[in-house]
Amino acid sequence: MNYKEASIKLHREVQGKIEMISRVDIKNKDDLSIVYSPGVAEPSLEIYKDSKLSYMYTRKHNTVAVITDGSAVLGLGNIGAQASMPVMEGKAVLFKLLGNIDAIPLCLDTQDTNEIIKTITLLSKSFGGINLEDISAPRCFEIENALKKSCDIPIFHDDQHGTAIVVGAALLNALKLVHKKIKDIKIVINGAGAAGTAITHFLISLGASNIIVCDKHGILSKSDQTLSLSHQSLSNMTNQKQLTGDLSVAIKNADVFIGVSVAGCVTKEMIKSMSEQPIVFAMANPIPEILPEDAYDAGAYIVGTGSSKYENQINNLLAFPGIFRGALDAHAKEITYDMMKAASLAIANSIQQKDLKMNYIIPDPLDKTVHQKIAQAVYDSALLTNVEKTH
Amino acid sequence: MNYKEASIKLHREVQGKIEMISRVDIKNKDDLSIVYSPGVAEPSLEIYKDSKLSYMYTRKHNTVAVITDGSAVLGLGNIGAQASMPVMEGKAVLFKLLGNIDAIPLCLDTQDTNEIIKTITLLSKSFGGINLEDISAPRCFEIENALKKSCDIPIFHDDQHGTAIVVGAALLNALKLVHKKIKDIKIVINGAGAAGTAITHFLISLGASNIIVCDKHGILSKSDQTLSLSHQSLSNMTNQKQLTGDLSVAIKNADVFIGVSVAGCVTKEMIKSMSEQPIVFAMANPIPEILPEDAYDAGAYIVGTGSSKYENQINNLLAFPGIFRGALDAHAKEITYDMMKAASLAIANSIQQKDLKMNYIIPDPLDKTVHQKIAQAVYDSALLTNVEKTH
Repeated sequence: MNYKEASIKLHREVQGKIEMISRVDIKNKDDLSIVYSPGVAEPSLEIYKDSKLSYMYTRKHNTVAVITDGSAVLGLGNIGAQASMPVMEGKAVLFKLLGNIDAIPLCLDTQDTNEIIKTITLLSKSFGGINLEDISAPRCFEIENALKKSCDIPIFHDDQHGTAIVVGAALLNALKLVHKKIKDIKIVINGAGAAGTAITHFLISLGASNIIVCDKHGILSKSDQTLSLSHQSLSNMTNQKQLTGDLSVAIKNADVFIGVSVAGCVTKEMIKSMSEQPIVFAMANPIPEILPEDAYDAGAYIVGTGSSKYENQINNLLAFPGIFRGALDAHAKEITYDMMKAASLAIANSIQQKDLKMNYIIPDPLDKTVHQKIAQAVYDSALLTNVEKTH
Repeated sequence: MNYKEASIKLHREVQGKIEMISRVDIKNKDDLSIVYSPGVAEPSLEIYKDSKLSYMYTRKHNTVAVITDGSAVLGLGNIGAQASMPVMEGKAVLFKLLGNIDAIPLCLDTQDTNEIIKTITLLSKSFGGINLEDISAPRCFEIENALKKSCDIPIFHDDQHGTAIVVGAALLNALKLVHKKIKDIKIVINGAGAAGTAITHFLISLGASNIIVCDKHGILSKSDQTLSLSHQSLSNMTNQKQLTGDLSVAIKNADVFIGVSVAGCVTKEMIKSMSEQPIVFAMANPIPEILPEDAYDAGAYIVGTGSSKYENQINNLLAFPGIFRGALDAHAKEITYDMMKAASLAIANSIQQKDLKMNYIIPDPLDKTVHQKIAQAVYDSALLTNVEKTH
């Protein structure tokens, strides 16, 4: 199938992939007086007295804004606000399909960090959560951190945390098959942008203790005086042995390779230098760091990619619908690491141990029952940790 | 019927009056690859090359943002962002019902004029039009004027222009019944806020030449050194005879009284002092400037109000759906006075001359055929004046 042609055809026909509909009927003046003026003044006054009632009287409890600045869109890069809308509408479709969530796509016509923070803060009362999408690193870190302080609803940068949650789930299942524990293994992460940074943080929260992060210049090391602030921060929590050198140095004896970098940067020789039963997640899109057939040929035991062309697609579509469904249902004010861990475990455990196979470590992202399990786990975690549901 | 109780009940039950749905189906991985990654990259790239294609490949052509700062909500006043959402959702319901338009309600958590302008400008690429709602005067003038310069889509402050268009239509029909022409009559407008200002401008564009505007301090006159900038501007285009005094002075011998002010400020004596066959639009809500029965008793020939309790409800619900439907269909970059005049005439002419009566000068706002006529008239005007439809 030619996806390009098929996509253009679909987009011409459908003229917008989402649509706002009404949930109420207005047949006569009485209906109008209840839905709109003068009756609508009553729920407004109630919310004015107690803002938490907005979860009851408006659609806040089911609404997430999907916000981008168009700076790092899919594999396209910096295409700006207007051109990023088809992707954001697609994301809204997936929010509805898999989480039954009303998602509002908003493309901001600025790439100034402070303007983005200010704009989203001022908008935030209109939503139950904010899904940041396709914002380039390192700006995405500053934006997310500032919004977590300025907004009282969950802020979630999917390119970071969605990816991390699904990688975590895939890794936990792969480790079951090779009978290794996350605390004992050596993990190499190639790519130190939004996804690589979030994966590092998340795997540490899952118990990983021996991670080496590389970027295109090689191993991130404290001894390197040229690192950016975000890379310095990464180097402080990784690379205990203070290795220096390139990826071929880092990957020696590694149990796990996780690539969120560029096509073809991993060789068969590198795979051969890994520990026994190596796990290789080569997630560069659309072409992985090493082709699965080459990785297997070089001795990889389990291979995952970011592409639907291969088995074990590590697709962050598995995370965001259930994460937000659970967070919205709990009226959560934030998405904590505990909630993310609960999501990751729910994804992993949606495949029973007996069904796990080398080529089946991650569930089908179009299986709605998986998303329901994730949502429940996130909801339970939210109630335990950071929210009090009042209505 | 108790609208307050009924409205609370409805809002509790429905849990949000609007909902975002998907217009595409995803049943399998192929569908996913067309709707989302990797296929969605193609329409994005097409828009990147030619931004006008956003009208074809996204929902821009049918989407309007309904934006408020919560500063002047219905009769409630300044209730802020969160509490204004039930009203904005109600507006979105009406956009869908009467214009088949996808409306996105956004409540901004600021009342700083510059922050509002900046925020909306940065958001504007996501929509085909912006409906400003319930923003207090005189801030609404500055915000609207700035946005008209900074955005390349229609900006429409409904409290101003929607009201003006419907008042204009009602007045044109009322004048047919009393056989007077707009250029010959004396009009008194009581209230010099958002609605009063817009009505003044619009009636002048329809040919009115003799208007006196009053606010709570009396007649706006050039000789008054204490006037605000927006009131100075109004006084320069009205009150030719430089009258001073209160409403009772202004209204003497007037053919038309238009009230967008407060309950009960017009007396029977004032009505008695008007010209023959006086037209009285007492639109203060929920209680008019003078009750219709009192106005008729004092000699009013035609009375309209803002309330559904009485005949001749002058309801700005008649304007915005057709205005935006026509503007969106034309891919208009702005809403011109010509488009507003076309809308006003379409509303007026939706009632045939032979059907006009003292108590039937304005059509039923729930009659969808009226909105279709308005949309067609606005679309035709847009194509004549300010746009070139390219797709």
